[in-house]
Amino acid sequence: MVSEKCLELGTARSCIRELFEYGLRQAAVVGRENVYDYSLGNPSIPAPAKVNETFISILRDTDSLAVHSYTPATGGPEARRAVAEDLNRRFGTAIRGENIFFTCGAAPALLSVIRALAVKDAEILAIAPFFPEYRPFVEGCGAAFRVVPANTETFQISLESLEAQLTPHTQAIIVNSPNNPSGVVYTRETLEKVGALLTRKGAEYGHPIYIIADEPYRELVYDGVEVPFIPTIYANTIVCYSYSKSLSLPGERIGYVCVPDQAADSQQVFAAVAGAARVLGHVCAPSLQQRVVAACTDLRPDLEAYDRNRNLLYDALTSYGYQCPKPQGAFYMFVKAPGGDSQAFSQRAKEKNLLLVPGDDFGCPEFFRICTCVSQDMIRRSLPVFRELIETQA
Amino acid sequence: MVSEKCLELGTARSCIRELFEYGLRQAAVVGRENVYDYSLGNPSIPAPAKVNETFISILRDTDSLAVHSYTPATGGPEARRAVAEDLNRRFGTAIRGENIFFTCGAAPALLSVIRALAVKDAEILAIAPFFPEYRPFVEGCGAAFRVVPANTETFQISLESLEAQLTPHTQAIIVNSPNNPSGVVYTRETLEKVGALLTRKGAEYGHPIYIIADEPYRELVYDGVEVPFIPTIYANTIVCYSYSKSLSLPGERIGYVCVPDQAADSQQVFAAVAGAARVLGHVCAPSLQQRVVAACTDLRPDLEAYDRNRNLLYDALTSYGYQCPKPQGAFYMFVKAPGGDSQAFSQRAKEKNLLLVPGDDFGCPEFFRICTCVSQDMIRRSLPVFRELIETQA
Repeated sequence: MVSEKCLELGTARSCIRELFEYGLRQAAVVGRENVYDYSLGNPSIPAPAKVNETFISILRDTDSLAVHSYTPATGGPEARRAVAEDLNRRFGTAIRGENIFFTCGAAPALLSVIRALAVKDAEILAIAPFFPEYRPFVEGCGAAFRVVPANTETFQISLESLEAQLTPHTQAIIVNSPNNPSGVVYTRETLEKVGALLTRKGAEYGHPIYIIADEPYRELVYDGVEVPFIPTIYANTIVCYSYSKSLSLPGERIGYVCVPDQAADSQQVFAAVAGAARVLGHVCAPSLQQRVVAACTDLRPDLEAYDRNRNLLYDALTSYGYQCPKPQGAFYMFVKAPGGDSQAFSQRAKEKNLLLVPGDDFGCPEFFRICTCVSQDMIRRSLPVFRELIETQA
Repeated sequence: MVSEKCLELGTARSCIRELFEYGLRQAAVVGRENVYDYSLGNPSIPAPAKVNETFISILRDTDSLAVHSYTPATGGPEARRAVAEDLNRRFGTAIRGENIFFTCGAAPALLSVIRALAVKDAEILAIAPFFPEYRPFVEGCGAAFRVVPANTETFQISLESLEAQLTPHTQAIIVNSPNNPSGVVYTRETLEKVGALLTRKGAEYGHPIYIIADEPYRELVYDGVEVPFIPTIYANTIVCYSYSKSLSLPGERIGYVCVPDQAADSQQVFAAVAGAARVLGHVCAPSLQQRVVAACTDLRPDLEAYDRNRNLLYDALTSYGYQCPKPQGAFYMFVKAPGGDSQAFSQRAKEKNLLLVPGDDFGCPEFFRICTCVSQDMIRRSLPVFRELIETQA
């Protein structure tokens, strides 16, 4: 008597979470120091101190009714303006507060946009490797989920593979850069080519093909690599953002959708996003958090620890013979499984209490993901296991 | 190229919000003191002081990573246990933390439950007068929305009208008490009769008919009236709760679903709620707010101002000849429109800058709603207008 689809979504445990919980149980058996858990992408760097100070000063100095009241569904006008101004300062854009729709994090932001674009027979594309939740999100909105196969040489976007998946029903492609799980940042050149292709095919089909830019890792980049702001390259871009990683506030559920004026049918898209959000249960994003992030748009986490882990793991694993693209952003590495079967390899690793996520759900079954937002100490203890696994691989 | 349904939901302005914005514009023309705005149900009593103190002490004394991390999708285990224990203390129940699923307020709680129950051909019933968002919520989940006509004598639930709407496709009825918009609290007698009817019809149809108890106003009651906890009367009850009103935190988006063990297929329903939440964009409820409400379950707002307003308005309006049930809870009054047409009457009122919400969207076109969570000063200034309107009614 309950929806089978919902039941399936609620009981089919995510492979990631299952691994994580296995790790907790195993720690009780073999000791915490003997479990090497690379499963979960939970930020391990605390929020900048000023974030907590901002929380406290708002709670202390602002009228309680004003702080905790409903904001408009779109968000408080001042907070929306602060976000727009921050984007304009950094990217030379002309985004207005009216283009910003605050959400309870990136997940409802993505879902609102996907649902808004889910016309009859709509197809939404993701580029492998991709965040596994995209599939239930797209299918849950009644659209068809299509995968552009990975370019496992460079992990940039293969234009040929992308073009082969485009049809007159393609409403949007989801672009996630810096990428979860590969850590790769799409270059300006890649994005320009994708933009040109979408412009050409959109003209051919007689309707825009949107890019949904899923950007929770925008500020988590290393070596000064450029993360191009896609709306400045391709007009029909809708941005979904979250402060989960950039301010280390993943539990606080605060993010936004940005529909710039230049996007085709911008006002209609914005209104449809608002309508979609309404039937997703959105009333407003947490009002306190709106105020906090608006006052903290210029803060960045201290990425040194993530960067140190990235170099340590990359250097060690490649020296043992593992192959993987060097991550330029986010806090993941996507490593080719010795032997080519990430399920089998991850199972071997699990027997040694090394928890790796097989790449199947990311659309790349021959790779596994490791999260580098862990303690350096755990990394050091795990390295001999990585070494042994590749040396004993048949 | 956008979903027509979403576009419609995003552009069709709610009558309430439109009135509210008209009031703001009109205030600029005739002066704020000459507009009597009874449109919006925004709490006007601030959160208890201890709530803000709790926010601050958590931010100050708890490890920042722990406070702001993702919690499990269901909520943090300690917060869930605190909610369960509070319910058990008050209602003698045996609810466990595992029965609680924290949500970003009551709207996603309701939507998760509705979506979980939205099997093929499902029908979900609401009892007039009802909160207008129920309709898009139910229809947005693909279920049919059916209305049980109001009993405008007592505003209790008419058993005959309810039975007439039950069919083998009825999955659930939404029960909202204290009621928005009438302020009426359903009596134990009413709920026992409803429970008996649903038990009988469920047996006849061979499947449970759930009560979805939408209870954001549970603690906002006057004169010591009893608000029965429906799970203690009818086993197949799923509770949707929000702290928006009970702690005056409407912007902070924190509430829960409670699926007690005794409800039929309890574990399946809980899992389906989790699955539904996932495709509604739920990751977790704001982690800071979870901790705050868990520490504040025993706090209540200072209802004196609401109660004073209620008595002032009820006594004045009935003395002028208006008819309405005396509200026992929430912060609304639902008044019969002199002449019987609330659209026409509200239009006459609007011309005198008195903003009343016509009852059409609540399922009772002959009544209008007023929110009593306003300033007493505004009430006093508005009374002559109420009086004039009824005296000049043709």
